[in-house]
Amino acid sequence: MAEKEEIIGITNPKSNFSEWFSEVIAKAELADMRHNVKGFLVHRPWSVMTMELMYDYYEREMRRTGHKPVWFPALIPESNFKKEAEHVEGFIPEVFWVTHAGDKKLEEKLAMRPTSETAMYSMYSIWIRSWRDLPLKLYQRCQVWRYETKATRPFIRGREFFWIEAHNVFATLKGAEDQVKEDMKITENVMHKVFGIPFLFFRRPDWDKFPGAVYTYAADSLMPDGRIIQQPSTHLLGQNFSKPFDVKFVDKDKKEKYGWQTCYGPAIWRIFASVIALHGDDKGLRFPWEIAPMQVVIVPINHHENKSVLGYCEQLKKMLDEACVSVEIDERDYTPGWKFNDWEMKGVPIRLEIGPREVKEKTATLVRRDTKDKKKIRVKSLVRELESEGEALSQKLRREADSFFRKNMHQARNMKELEANLSKGGFTKIAYCSMDIEGVPCAQKIKDELHGDVRGERADKPENPKAGKCIVCGKKAKHFVYVGKQY
Amino acid sequence: MAEKEEIIGITNPKSNFSEWFSEVIAKAELADMRHNVKGFLVHRPWSVMTMELMYDYYEREMRRTGHKPVWFPALIPESNFKKEAEHVEGFIPEVFWVTHAGDKKLEEKLAMRPTSETAMYSMYSIWIRSWRDLPLKLYQRCQVWRYETKATRPFIRGREFFWIEAHNVFATLKGAEDQVKEDMKITENVMHKVFGIPFLFFRRPDWDKFPGAVYTYAADSLMPDGRIIQQPSTHLLGQNFSKPFDVKFVDKDKKEKYGWQTCYGPAIWRIFASVIALHGDDKGLRFPWEIAPMQVVIVPINHHENKSVLGYCEQLKKMLDEACVSVEIDERDYTPGWKFNDWEMKGVPIRLEIGPREVKEKTATLVRRDTKDKKKIRVKSLVRELESEGEALSQKLRREADSFFRKNMHQARNMKELEANLSKGGFTKIAYCSMDIEGVPCAQKIKDELHGDVRGERADKPENPKAGKCIVCGKKAKHFVYVGKQY
Repeated sequence: MAEKEEIIGITNPKSNFSEWFSEVIAKAELADMRHNVKGFLVHRPWSVMTMELMYDYYEREMRRTGHKPVWFPALIPESNFKKEAEHVEGFIPEVFWVTHAGDKKLEEKLAMRPTSETAMYSMYSIWIRSWRDLPLKLYQRCQVWRYETKATRPFIRGREFFWIEAHNVFATLKGAEDQVKEDMKITENVMHKVFGIPFLFFRRPDWDKFPGAVYTYAADSLMPDGRIIQQPSTHLLGQNFSKPFDVKFVDKDKKEKYGWQTCYGPAIWRIFASVIALHGDDKGLRFPWEIAPMQVVIVPINHHENKSVLGYCEQLKKMLDEACVSVEIDERDYTPGWKFNDWEMKGVPIRLEIGPREVKEKTATLVRRDTKDKKKIRVKSLVRELESEGEALSQKLRREADSFFRKNMHQARNMKELEANLSKGGFTKIAYCSMDIEGVPCAQKIKDELHGDVRGERADKPENPKAGKCIVCGKKAKHFVYVGKQY
Repeated sequence: MAEKEEIIGITNPKSNFSEWFSEVIAKAELADMRHNVKGFLVHRPWSVMTMELMYDYYEREMRRTGHKPVWFPALIPESNFKKEAEHVEGFIPEVFWVTHAGDKKLEEKLAMRPTSETAMYSMYSIWIRSWRDLPLKLYQRCQVWRYETKATRPFIRGREFFWIEAHNVFATLKGAEDQVKEDMKITENVMHKVFGIPFLFFRRPDWDKFPGAVYTYAADSLMPDGRIIQQPSTHLLGQNFSKPFDVKFVDKDKKEKYGWQTCYGPAIWRIFASVIALHGDDKGLRFPWEIAPMQVVIVPINHHENKSVLGYCEQLKKMLDEACVSVEIDERDYTPGWKFNDWEMKGVPIRLEIGPREVKEKTATLVRRDTKDKKKIRVKSLVRELESEGEALSQKLRREADSFFRKNMHQARNMKELEANLSKGGFTKIAYCSMDIEGVPCAQKIKDELHGDVRGERADKPENPKAGKCIVCGKKAKHFVYVGKQY
């Protein structure tokens, strides 16, 4: 027992972000990197239970907005991939190829899906016949596989990750454009309002859009070290895929037309990285109430001396089970202090300390993970109090994350200011020449000299630089773009 | 509209089972076989919504019995596979191999998991240290891939399917044996009590057990054509894997010991085949209330003439939404009769017909999918009535399935009787010489001459043939075994 007590607790302060992140993942038993295939993570129960809840919230919102779930095959023939030229060029270098089955060589090699456009749209071409079949709004929760050559990091960049991908078809361009807006709203409703992760949607420069898209809107969030992490992105595909995949419909005017398409891809796996990173503190994880794998832990005190304590804990557990609050009693053979540290590290939102006094008074001592505030609650109002404290905790975590995000918004009028800002982290807004091909050299210069990445202009409200000049080349600025260092 | 009305409805009677099954899958839009990789199915919303609910019930039961969820990588190095000799021999012929990534050849080829023993147990070897770490009970919901060479059929046999796999480790053989019993109980609690699918667990003959197992208990159910379909199986692995994978722990007596293991694999995908097949009728699907993708459909009548009808339907929908009953209003531009047929084909348990009369009376006309019984319900008691009618429907479906199962249990005293029974379908109980290697020739003879498969002896209550003789070879019978034709 003593031996185990010594090794507990996070030793790196969160200000040492990279070490802290790795330590929390290992010690809170979120994931294990020791599976012997590079870039493939073993996900342990504590992360899976959380991500399952995150999936629930996301899928509920997808269904509320009229999407229906599908499961498409994990393997896609090479010939499907080759139908859209930009798409194949973008993804082929990252594909894992299945070439054999049993001891047979396959006639055509099969791609493990890096994304499912090329599997789904050939079926859409069969399913869609008339304007009555539109809009078609389908999504799947699944894994995808990408042979990343950059360094992999748990939940941030891996060769296997878990996401949702939605693929929609509309009769009109307007329908598709409205979907892109709805995707941004879905992201806000779930990722910000429920998970507490702030972000901004940027229209990506042409050189950084999704392969095959007309344009890409991507949500960028910040990690505690001030670096940018890309979160869900939504893409207007226009007719770029409907033409090669023959996704056509007969419209009300009896004319045959190509569908207008969008796709949207929230990676639950990666959003989980933001949840760990943004909400955690020096002691470990802090989960929002809604997605905590365990919302309440009951720690019995002096239950060996006082036999009524455990029975009382069981009563409370039963009451919370019935109220659909997830709860466990920690009866392990450790001291209460050790248990407090353990559950704080694991991010359980609320702890109930139950000793003989609580039994006698018919109360519970409630301690919040975020504020450490202690208060005595009468059993009668326990469920109500837990729900309101849980909600308050989630709000506090979100407010703190929002405030961190806001503090990291900068501006720069020249390269020198940009350099100074980039060293602080966060986003820096600059006047910029062009987001199409002409703008590549300036982005390259920012990358080479300052290690900054041009993320694009705001997608929610385009900003006009008016008479401003590009701070890199001095030509007329067409946009305000945001620059930062990305993960 | 007329054109579409003509093609609706199932044309094959269920007695033409094979054609009926394919027709229902296509017309009720459960799945599509036209993805261009053989044996890989595209799952449409109507099947996915059902299977998601089936997963929910199964996972809840897994968690209730102390299992925790994990997500393991889809790719497993060839070297892991080779650690357990029987296992590698059993699975290697079915493996899809990844040999390349991008344009690079991989140093070691990677198997797409056909099952996860060899991925998980190498991690178990790291995680398990002491008796305190046991039992370890983990499961994952995932897909697996197997290069089946037999003919594939949707939801029955495919090269990609969706299941749950549980992998448990215990300090003692007794612990592992108790788990096998718990797995049988879990199967009963979910597959029979909730999904309404009857089955019997058989201890498989040695020549038919899971590769690497000490013994296999497998649940066999029946399809409407009297053929057997294997459903979940649970395996006592003993120390057959813990030794090669080095899954050891220090016991209370300070001695290092190998763990005792079990694994259990309910294939949601295949259980869904039984749900379609057993509960369906000549008109199409019939879903139990608990797993129906839509529990109630509201069909408005004369709503074009009477403007109050749709508003009233909306009120009912809101009431049911709040009561967590899944419901849609069918406002499509078809006749009520067409809609009735459509939703009957799709298996929605209860239909509410709402016309001006119902609005005026504050009632709803409720029609059950199974009995076709119509009754008027007052709005005040609607939720309660729906729940009780829904439950009654589920019970009726289960009772019908149970009765069909019972009627298909036969006995035979000689090969001639066995032959006659096999042509009727179902299970035939016979006295049999031996379930170990000596029994192979008799099984082979039954297979060659009568196309029957020896499924093993009852796992729930072994039956003793006493002085009986094997009906094939005439030697002393050690077991009663059950024979049938399998899918």
